[in-house]
Formats: sequence, structure tokens, C-alpha cells
Amino acid sequence: MYEPTRDDKFSFGLWTITKKVGLDPFGKPTREPPPPVEVVRKLGDLGVWGINFHDDDLVPAEKASEKERIVREFRQAVNDSGMVVSMVSCDLFSDPLFRDGAFTSADSRVRARAIQKAMRAMDLGKEFDAPLFVMWGGREGTEVNASGKLLDAHAWWREALDYLCAYSEEQGYGYRFALEPKPNEPRGDTFMPTAGAMLGFIATLEHSDLVGVNPEIAHEIMAGLNFPQVLAQVIDAGKLFHVDLNDQRFGRFDQDRRFASENPSTALYTVALLEEHYDGPLQFDSHALRTEDMDGVWDFVRGSMRSYLILRERAAAFADDPEVKQWREAYYVRDGELEGLLAFSRDNSKRLKEYEFDLDMLRERGIGLERIDQIAFEHLAGAR
Amino acid sequence: MYEPTRDDKFSFGLWTITKKVGLDPFGKPTREPPPPVEVVRKLGDLGVWGINFHDDDLVPAEKASEKERIVREFRQAVNDSGMVVSMVSCDLFSDPLFRDGAFTSADSRVRARAIQKAMRAMDLGKEFDAPLFVMWGGREGTEVNASGKLLDAHAWWREALDYLCAYSEEQGYGYRFALEPKPNEPRGDTFMPTAGAMLGFIATLEHSDLVGVNPEIAHEIMAGLNFPQVLAQVIDAGKLFHVDLNDQRFGRFDQDRRFASENPSTALYTVALLEEHYDGPLQFDSHALRTEDMDGVWDFVRGSMRSYLILRERAAAFADDPEVKQWREAYYVRDGELEGLLAFSRDNSKRLKEYEFDLDMLRERGIGLERIDQIAFEHLAGAR
Amino acid sequence: MYEPTRDDKFSFGLWTITKKVGLDPFGKPTREPPPPVEVVRKLGDLGVWGINFHDDDLVPAEKASEKERIVREFRQAVNDSGMVVSMVSCDLFSDPLFRDGAFTSADSRVRARAIQKAMRAMDLGKEFDAPLFVMWGGREGTEVNASGKLLDAHAWWREALDYLCAYSEEQGYGYRFALEPKPNEPRGDTFMPTAGAMLGFIATLEHSDLVGVNPEIAHEIMAGLNFPQVLAQVIDAGKLFHVDLNDQRFGRFDQDRRFASENPSTALYTVALLEEHYDGPLQFDSHALRTEDMDGVWDFVRGSMRSYLILRERAAAFADDPEVKQWREAYYVRDGELEGLLAFSRDNSKRLKEYEFDLDMLRERGIGLERIDQIAFEHLAGAR
Amino acid sequence: MYEPTRDDKFSFGLWTITKKVGLDPFGKPTREPPPPVEVVRKLGDLGVWGINFHDDDLVPAEKASEKERIVREFRQAVNDSGMVVSMVSCDLFSDPLFRDGAFTSADSRVRARAIQKAMRAMDLGKEFDAPLFVMWGGREGTEVNASGKLLDAHAWWREALDYLCAYSEEQGYGYRFALEPKPNEPRGDTFMPTAGAMLGFIATLEHSDLVGVNPEIAHEIMAGLNFPQVLAQVIDAGKLFHVDLNDQRFGRFDQDRRFASENPSTALYTVALLEEHYDGPLQFDSHALRTEDMDGVWDFVRGSMRSYLILRERAAAFADDPEVKQWREAYYVRDGELEGLLAFSRDNSKRLKEYEFDLDMLRERGIGLERIDQIAFEHLAGAR
Repeated sequence: MYEPTRDDKFSFGLWTITKKVGLDPFGKPTREPPPPVEVVRKLGDLGVWGINFHDDDLVPAEKASEKERIVREFRQAVNDSGMVVSMVSCDLFSDPLFRDGAFTSADSRVRARAIQKAMRAMDLGKEFDAPLFVMWGGREGTEVNASGKLLDAHAWWREALDYLCAYSEEQGYGYRFALEPKPNEPRGDTFMPTAGAMLGFIATLEHSDLVGVNPEIAHEIMAGLNFPQVLAQVIDAGKLFHVDLNDQRFGRFDQDRRFASENPSTALYTVALLEEHYDGPLQFDSHALRTEDMDGVWDFVRGSMRSYLILRERAAAFADDPEVKQWREAYYVRDGELEGLLAFSRDNSKRLKEYEFDLDMLRERGIGLERIDQIAFEHLAGAR
Repeated sequence: MYEPTRDDKFSFGLWTITKKVGLDPFGKPTREPPPPVEVVRKLGDLGVWGINFHDDDLVPAEKASEKERIVREFRQAVNDSGMVVSMVSCDLFSDPLFRDGAFTSADSRVRARAIQKAMRAMDLGKEFDAPLFVMWGGREGTEVNASGKLLDAHAWWREALDYLCAYSEEQGYGYRFALEPKPNEPRGDTFMPTAGAMLGFIATLEHSDLVGVNPEIAHEIMAGLNFPQVLAQVIDAGKLFHVDLNDQRFGRFDQDRRFASENPSTALYTVALLEEHYDGPLQFDSHALRTEDMDGVWDFVRGSMRSYLILRERAAAFADDPEVKQWREAYYVRDGELEGLLAFSRDNSKRLKEYEFDLDMLRERGIGLERIDQIAFEHLAGAR
Repeated sequence: MYEPTRDDKFSFGLWTITKKVGLDPFGKPTREPPPPVEVVRKLGDLGVWGINFHDDDLVPAEKASEKERIVREFRQAVNDSGMVVSMVSCDLFSDPLFRDGAFTSADSRVRARAIQKAMRAMDLGKEFDAPLFVMWGGREGTEVNASGKLLDAHAWWREALDYLCAYSEEQGYGYRFALEPKPNEPRGDTFMPTAGAMLGFIATLEHSDLVGVNPEIAHEIMAGLNFPQVLAQVIDAGKLFHVDLNDQRFGRFDQDRRFASENPSTALYTVALLEEHYDGPLQFDSHALRTEDMDGVWDFVRGSMRSYLILRERAAAFADDPEVKQWREAYYVRDGELEGLLAFSRDNSKRLKEYEFDLDMLRERGIGLERIDQIAFEHLAGAR
Repeated sequence: MYEPTRDDKFSFGLWTITKKVGLDPFGKPTREPPPPVEVVRKLGDLGVWGINFHDDDLVPAEKASEKERIVREFRQAVNDSGMVVSMVSCDLFSDPLFRDGAFTSADSRVRARAIQKAMRAMDLGKEFDAPLFVMWGGREGTEVNASGKLLDAHAWWREALDYLCAYSEEQGYGYRFALEPKPNEPRGDTFMPTAGAMLGFIATLEHSDLVGVNPEIAHEIMAGLNFPQVLAQVIDAGKLFHVDLNDQRFGRFDQDRRFASENPSTALYTVALLEEHYDGPLQFDSHALRTEDMDGVWDFVRGSMRSYLILRERAAAFADDPEVKQWREAYYVRDGELEGLLAFSRDNSKRLKEYEFDLDMLRERGIGLERIDQIAFEHLAGAR
């Protein structure tokens, strides 16, 4: 039970195993992961469908000369495992070069280097037929508003995205781009800090049709937002191009905890929305606790997928519960006459403006949210 | 010194004096304000330029029959004081009718009633030539994702905005609309919770050109965001239609504190951006502490404007400081050749992709943010 | 199943039904509850064991002259229902008199009035044999550190508590006192804002043995803290005199949501600790959403208790799971020789200082927290 | 102006220069600091009075064999600079050994090793006559309440502190101990997460007189608390043994920003309290931004001290402002008769209980907090 298959389309970032080795600002690494090729094989054995990476995860700068071999062996491992490369990304945050921004650096040389590196990452991704390019602007922000670049930063970032979209089209790569927002960390504040802000930004881009959002549970929680509600806006806008599943406690550093480990209710409604409105990769952008050795890492991988499958079952049972169906029917009140007036016309607006409502009745009827919320809890707890 | 004039375009909401009377979830009102007409006169005496209101602030439901007289007397008071009505709004949150949403209620009768009320508020605003219609969706959210309406809520809200824009156009009102986001309170979570989310939503509207944002310092702080950075995105998008100045501590109920009282640095950079990129009303959407009697309320009004004027002086001195000018010149590094390659063409992208950067030099040069930030603090503290 | 009995010792505050009527800073009341006597009967029917109140909840100022009758009828209703009055409290926050503090007001007349009111509330509680006096200092804080009273406030609050303890002893009331911390709201910041701070404060009191803590889930979450860990410190200090069960999202106004509705994991570990280390009242200090009519209020009451009972079952199953037992045995590593050296003596400390540890082995062994956490999630979800 | 002298007693941790080199969870180090001896000389030149360190900052494990030389040279540099070693600490967080707690590890071997290391650090500190031992329990917490050690953790931590106090006394070291709380990071949650919690814990210790608190601005802000109010409780309890000055935005990773850079008002009231109630070291536990090279680091050091001195001047001017004096006199209302009744006796309590207050008058008088708060802002801004 709760065993994943390729059809579930679960994916992991290579870095979540190979680079998240327990290093933190106050402590040294605690474990040594196997090389990428072995990681892929192990993930494949555990039922994972997709793997993906930043350029440097696969081909670190110091191994640039071995790129061809690395690519070949990694492709082989992916194929052997029956897996796919579900997306590719570009690391524009690790190198000290980008310490004050990559696309939003006030130094045009740094901006140019960032675009160069992104083009090369796109080339690399195409060696694996990756259909999607995910972009997280880890250093695109500031701690010091006195820098005076707040407006320029937005213009520069747009310039970079327009450039990269043009490059993808001109090369015939056909990438779709997914912007990944995060409110802070490693910068004190990141520009365009939430999924909503990214939607606003996309509307200003030249190739806005190619660009969508990669919302991440932990990142929206860091802004104190309600992830399922954020996800609903992204879906409503037709911009859910990818999704990062993990968990987080609000008011803390970026934890990237195991999916559903902190906020099971958030996870439940996230699963419900994804199952109904999305069929892309289900990416776990998270990592095992620093306390763990490699056994703990594989426990974390298994647990992430099991929890999703458990919650998928719970979400389906909730939706099918006859009491829930009945409740929802009562909740959605439809009034034919008034709904007719909601189609705007001069006449309809005039009639609506003069319509006499039974206000007291509308004020007094119970809405019933406590009951439905309790039923949902009981489904979550497997108690119905 | 620091005495406001009409040219400063400071405005207050009527409700910030007449309705914020010290009532809170744990205590009874603590003061009795004078009637609206007297409030206007007093604000005019203190140098305020604009006044504005929700429909019910001026004409409460129980005085509907006296509307004509109320409007006449209020207009007289505004004119006598040499003030203007800078915007109008509609109260879609006080009435229990809207307890589960106004434009996003699952009950189509409630949605229709909300649109009706908004049209009537637009009619009222035009009696004062208000050019702007501000919309805060206080009840447009939920505490219970189990309700199942997350996607519908976005569609319903869009339907309402499209309707009201059409109404304004059809009536020849020529309103511009400013959406005011707030992440939570009074609902557990509000849909489209930040200025960024509103920008994303606006892009999906039929009359998106008529609709902008009314960002509020306190509301973005409630999402832990950096207000000057949020403001910069709104300006970048050409959507800064109005602004609400106040203050707030993160991680708390909506405090609506006196401008600059909690986060003077945030206030400083906000003033700097507004002075350079905005010339609309400077609205104080805040209120005196519950501890205050009416003397304290007027202290609060005076203090709000004084603080803005002090910070305007500080921001100007900072921008004019020769050391700052020199620092900024060094910060913005321009490289002619590379900037040329940043104009996309097949050839330029090819050349950029192969360009050899002096990476180590770029990694090692100091950025100098501590120094500029210290200079800014010293200007804020009046110590330079 | 999951039906509460008197043995479960569930209690509710009268105010959670009668005073929480949907009034909030942005909206009017949404429901009209029945009178106290009927509330008690209904709660009794639902399986509740204890009821409690603030002085004014039972005898509002305007009904002071009817006190004797009210007390008599209420006592009758409690007795008829087979319930008990589990504690009593004093409302020192509603009256505008206390708007700048009760025990910590800078006005000695207000401090005196607060102590007077608390003594009278103690007298009232003894008419019902209440064994415990809970004290929440809703207005004991400030928004304005410039007031200059930060140190005096602590001294005044101590003075008040010493006085009230002395009064209780002198009258032979035998109360135990439980201080209820809350970090903010209605004040911008409350003095002694967390359960930990209250423990620190208690240590400075004259009658510190009589005084303990009433930790509340929502209040500690408002400070971003981990409630089970806070609870553990209170238990460790021997100061868990009462507990308030509810729920809350961090970074928000005081929500007082239904127990387990927001953070089921927090609720699970809370239940586990309480079942093992506490046998006092299980108080639900929470209220139904503003969207609800009285049917929704009773749904909320029922749901609160059902959720506790479900989680009690889950916590027991987790503790009894053989895999968990095995894991815990491995987790607690005992080394006889070293544990011997941990008994301090000159000689032991010398030997410990020179002991040679196998550091690499200790660095490399897996701790296994991901696995145990996943098992716990699966128990919470009823999936094991 | 604003030039520090030794009399100001400013101190820095060695690690804030030598170990905070721009490494973060998403990026590599960005600068290479000079060796400790040079750092001390440079700090001395800049007017710093005290230096301090964790054991490993001065003598890293890999240089254990050179300890004698390192100590000698460092002592020489401190003496040459006319500085002092103001405290010493023990690093119980960097080594992977402590990844699941040091004093609170469930493995008794790890707990023993932690005590061993702390004793050795105490020995090291005495080579410099350090009077104070600061203890931050970076790894004393958990992400996984399922571990089941919540109560044991408190007992183990107490055991360790009792041991170390006994060791200090037995050796004649005469240390005072200052516990430094932090709510989270690097652990998801830390046990005893705030200064208040530490006060509560201290009350349970065997040598509670030897143990106080080292409150840190950033750490209390991470719990959303008001630092001056927290500081006031620590002072009230007589437990302010040391203080860490820096800055932080709420809802973020541990930023350790330059003092006063984020929350100037918090800094102002902190300075005011310290100047009146404390004369120990003024420690800046913070570090330069990752964007900075070593020039930026020294800018940061200079700026930290300058900002304190500017705020000291502002705090004094505020306290001396005649309008402020007058306001405070009005704020502190003294009523001789009532204050008499506040000395508890049977008779006084009886009289107080029956006293007739003029409640309406007390409800209506203005408290005047907006005015005093505005005056404070104007002093902060150097505008009065």
C-alpha cells in the first residue's frame, strides 16, 4: 500500500540528495552522498519518475572538462532506470559572483554573466530533452534599500527574462519557463517575493505566454500565506507550470522539510487541488534533516511519496463523502434571477441596483464552516 | 517647521477618526468622536488636503432617508475647508451579510448584493467628483479550505470587477479602481493577499487598464514583506493608483499605527520612492491608539504629517549627500561592450555565450552595502 | 465512538459561547446566544464536565443588583447538569478603564481598582468552590516604549499578585493561581509574553508556590513557538496548573480556532504530553467562526471534543507501535561508565575531562528522526 | 564625534570577523579575514574594548597541538591593544557530533562529551581571566516532537548546568554564567526559546545565583517579541549578565545585522535601558553582509559603535526634554490613600474591596501615548 509508481510522476532534484549534506550556517556537513549516477539508480528503485538538476549539480565548474562523459553516463542511468529528466535549472546563487544579485546586479558584467550561464544551462537541459526551465532568483533581492536600485532591479530582471525567452525560441528549444518565488533567504528580502508577485511580473514580459510559476509550499508559508489559496490563484491564471512540494514552519529559516510533516492540512488541500487541476511533475524540493545518515535520506524519500499517496486517498474519500456532497450543495446557493442580472448590461445593472434583497435572511442563515472543517479533519485523521 | 500645506496632498479616511473609536475584540469603545462635518473642519485646520470615505461612513444604513442633507452638508464642509474628496470606497465587510465573502460568497444573492452596494457607492462618490474607487475585500477569504470554493472565488471576484468597470464606463464615471490587498484579518486568510497578487489578478481582468493597486504599508508588513520593494514593483508595473501610509509590527493583528512609528527606515525609503515616482494623494490609513481621547487623535493626525515631512527632508539630504552620489556611481558598473550584447540577437547571444569573464575579479570586489546603509541610518537619525 | 464523558474532564469558558458572537474590528455580531443557564444545560448534554467564567460573564456590571439570583440559578444549572465550575477568572480588559493596563497602569487608582475587582471575582468564585483562579493580563502591555514604565510595570504586577495571593490565604480560599501569557493583542506587546516568561516571573513572587501557568496553544503559536516544547518546560517546572486548547495560524490576530483544526501535529503531541503528565481540566478556550449560527457553535463544541478523543487514540497507538518502541530504545543510548562520571565530584570531573571519546563514530551514526517522524504522520493520518 | 573609547566598553566576538565569511546555505564564502591576532589589533585601533571567543574560534581542533603558542600570542595582542577578554564561550554546535543536541542529546556519550568540552573551554577562558561564561545551546532543540525526549531534554540540560557550575566553583574559577536563548535555527525549534524561558529555567537550577541571561536583540525579534520589554524583565529579575546587540527582521533566518540597521526604535529604547540599568560589556554579536569584502567588515564594526553613540545622545536628549518630563509627571498618577491600601493587610484589603472609585473619570481621561511617541520619533530623527 502507498507504493509509488512511475504513473504518479513523482520527481526529485538531484541537489536534494547530493548537495543537501547537512551543512548549515552553524555546522559542518554530516553525511556523504553517493555520486549522481548512483542516486538516480536508487531513486528509480524507490519508484521515482523524474529527476532534475541545476547546471552545476550535474557538471560542477571544476569538472567542466569532463562534461561529455558526465552527461553520457547520467543519461544512461536515467534511461536504465526508466526515468525522465523533468526539468532543468541554473544555479545563479552559489557563486560569490552573484552575491548582490544575478539578473538584478547593479554591475552589468554580472548580469551578462548570469544570462550567459542561463543560456548554457538551457543548452545542457536540451541534451536531456527537458521541457521546462525553472528559475529561482536566490540572490535577486537586497538587505539594503539604500542601494537605490529597487526600480532598476525590476527592469533588469525583465530584460534578462525577455532575452532568455528569445534565446529559447530562436534556438528552437521550446522551453516553458517557471519562475520560483521565495520571500527571503539567502537575501534579507527577495524582489517579487510570492507567487502572486510573479504573476504580476509575468504580465509585464514580452513572452508572457511562455512563462509561468513554480510555487513552493515552504516559500509561500515563509510569507505567512495559505498555500492552497495561493495555488488556486496560479491555477486560475493558467500559470501552474511546475510545483514544489515540501513543508515549513512559518517565521523560520528555509526548512525544506518532508512533505506533510509540519502542516498536514495544507498538504491535504494541496493534493486535492493538484489532483483536480494539474498533471505535471510532483516535485519534492526538500531534504532530509541534518541528523540523518544516508539511510535517513532514503527514509525521507520514501516518506515523501507515501504521505502524498495517503493524502490522495484521504482527499478522494473526503470529496466522495455523501455528507460533504450534501453540505456543498447547500453551500453554493444559486439564484437564477440574480445570476441573470450579473451579466452586465445597462439594463441589468439598473435592475440590480434597484433590487430589494431580504437582507435579514441573508444575515442569519448558518454557513456551516465548522462542520465541514471538522469532517475534513476526521478524514485527514482517517477517522471516518 | 514641518507644517503641512494643501500642496503636500495629505489625506485621511473619515473612518479613521469617526469609526476607529477604540473598540477591539476584547474591549469597548474608549472615545466619542465629533460628527463628520466637524471632523472635516478640524482636518482642514490641521493642513489636510483630502478626505474620503466608505459609503456607510458618510451615510449609514439607518440614516438612508437623510442622505441628501448629509451629502449637501458634507460637501459644504469640504468646500469651506478648501479640501477635496480624494477617493471613495464601499464597505463590504461590516454587515454580517458579507461574513463569508462579498464578491466571493458562494451564495449568488450575496454576490449580487455586493455589486449592488458597490454601484451605489460609485454613484455616491460621483456626487463629490471622486476620481478613484478603492476596493478592499475585507471578507474575501476563508479560514476553511474545505469549503471547496478556492477556484470559484477567483472567478467570482473577477466577474464582479469586470461588472463594476463596465458600470463605471457605461455611466461615464471615468473611475480608476485601486485594489487594496491584505493578507489576513478579519478572515483567517484573504484571497490575493499581497500587492503582487493583485498585480497578477489585474492582468486577468477585462478592463485591466482601469485597475491598479492601493498598497498599504501595514498590510504588506503583515505578510513579512519589505514595503519599499513591494512599492517598487507596483511602480514598475505602472499600477500605483493610491497608497496607504501607516505602520505595523509583523506577526500581529492589523495595527494601523501612526506612520513611521514602528519602522522608520521603511518609512524613509517609502517617502523617497513616492517623492520620485508618484504624485497622487498621500493617504494615512491609520488611527490613534485606543488609549487616546480626542486630543490624542489630533496629536496622531499632526504627528503623521510631521513625520512624513521630516522624512522627506531626510530623504532629500541623503540623495544629495556627495558621499552617497559617489558611492552610487561606483555601485552601478557599466560595461559598454557587454551592455551591447544584452540587446538580443542571434549573433549577440552567440557572442555572449562565448564571452570570457574575469570571474575572480567580479567575486572579490567589495560591494559596499554596509557603508551606504550606515550613511542612510545617520541621515535618518539627523546625525549628518 | 469519540463521544465524551464527564471522566474526560472537558471544560469550556462561558464566554466562548456567550461573548464570542462574531464581533470583530471590522464587523458587527453575527449571532445571538442563549442565556448562561441554557448554555450550561446544552454543554452538559454534549458531555462537557466543567464550566468557568470571568466575573462579568456571569454577573455583568449592569446586573450587579441581581447577582444573588444569577448565582443561585447558575449554580442550580451546573448542579443539575452534573457539571462543576472548574475555575474562575476576572475580566480586567473590557472596561476602557483598563485601556493602558490594569495591574500595570501608571495610574495607581487604576491598579487599586484592578486589585479590588480581582478580590471580588475571587469571592464570586468561592460561591462555586472554584479551586483555581486564572489570570490573563490582556491590557498589561504597551505599544509605546517611550512611556518609560517598562521596569515599573513588572514591579507593579508583582505587587498585585503578592497582594492577591495574600488575600486568598488570609480568607482561607486556598486558590491556586494560573497566569496565562499571550504575546500581543489587544496590546501591541504584552509584558511577560510567553509561558517561559511567566515561569521566570513566578520565581520572583512572594507566594511562588501558589502560582503556576495556564499555557494556551494559540498564544504560544502567536510567538512562533512549538507548543509541545513549551508545555514540556511548564511540566518540567511543576507549574502546569491549567491548559487552554485551541488552534491558531502564526503571524495572525488571535484566532482561537477549534482545537486541532490548523495544526494537527501540534495537537497530537499536546495530547500525548497531557495524557501522561496532567490530570486537570482540558479547557477549550476557543470559539466558533463568525460565519456560524448557533448550530455551528454546537458543531464547534462537539468537534473540539471529538478531535481530542481521536488524537488520544492516535497518540496511544503511536506509543504502543512496536516499531516505535524499538526505535526509541535505539535512540536513548546509555553508557554506564560515562553516566557515572556525570555525577559531579572533583574526581569524576577530572576523569571526564580526560576521557577519550570515539568522536568519529558518534558523528556518523544515523539518528533516525525522519523515520520516526514519518511513522508519527502515518499514525496521525490513521494509516497504520 | 561619535568616536568610541575603551570607556564605552564595546566588545566583539572573534567569530563575528573570522568565522562569518559569507558562507550561507546557498553560497560559498565571499571573503578571507586576517588571522585572530591581526583582527584584535584592528579592533583595538577602532576603539573596541573587549574581545571574546568560543574555544574553537581561538584554538581549532586541528591546531590543538599549537594551543600554548596561540594562547600566548593572542594574549599578547590583547594586552598590546589595551583590550580585555570580556567573556568566553564553548562551541557546542559546529561539530556533527552535536547534530541532535549537546547537553540534550539522547545519547549519554554525547552529553558527556559536551560537558567535557565545556569544562575545557572554561579552563581556556581562565587563561585570559574571563569573568563570564556565555552558553548558547545552538543544537538543543528538535524538529521532531515524535522523538519523545521533550521532558528528558530539560532534565539533561539542568544536569549539565549544575555540573558546570559545580566545576567552576570547585576549581575556584568564579565564573558567572549567561544563558543565551534563541527560538530556532539551526534547529527547527530550540528548547527554552526566549529570555523569559531562560529565567524560568534558571529558577530550577542548583546554583541559580551564578546563572543569568545573555539576551540578544535578533533572537527575541525572531520570536516576534519586543526587545526592550524583554530586557526590562531580565533587568527586573536581576539577571542581565551580558547583552548581544545586533538587528533582525522578524520572520526570517538569523540575520545578525548591524545594530540599529533594521529597527532603530528598538535600538533607541534598548540603549536607554542599558545606560540606566547595566554597566557590563556592550557586545555586538553580528556580522557584515555577505556582499562585503574586509573594508566592508570594518565599516560594519565602525558603524555598529557609531550608531550606539548616536542613539545614546538621542536617548539622553529625549529624557531631558522638558516636555517629556512634564508628560511623564502627568502619566504617573499617584493617589496617596489608595497606595496606602496597596500594602496588604486584612483591614486594608477589606477597605480596598469596598472603596468607591470614580470609574467614569478614569475611563475618560486621555493617556497621551500618541504625543509622547511622536516626540520620541522626532528625537530619534534628530528633529528636536
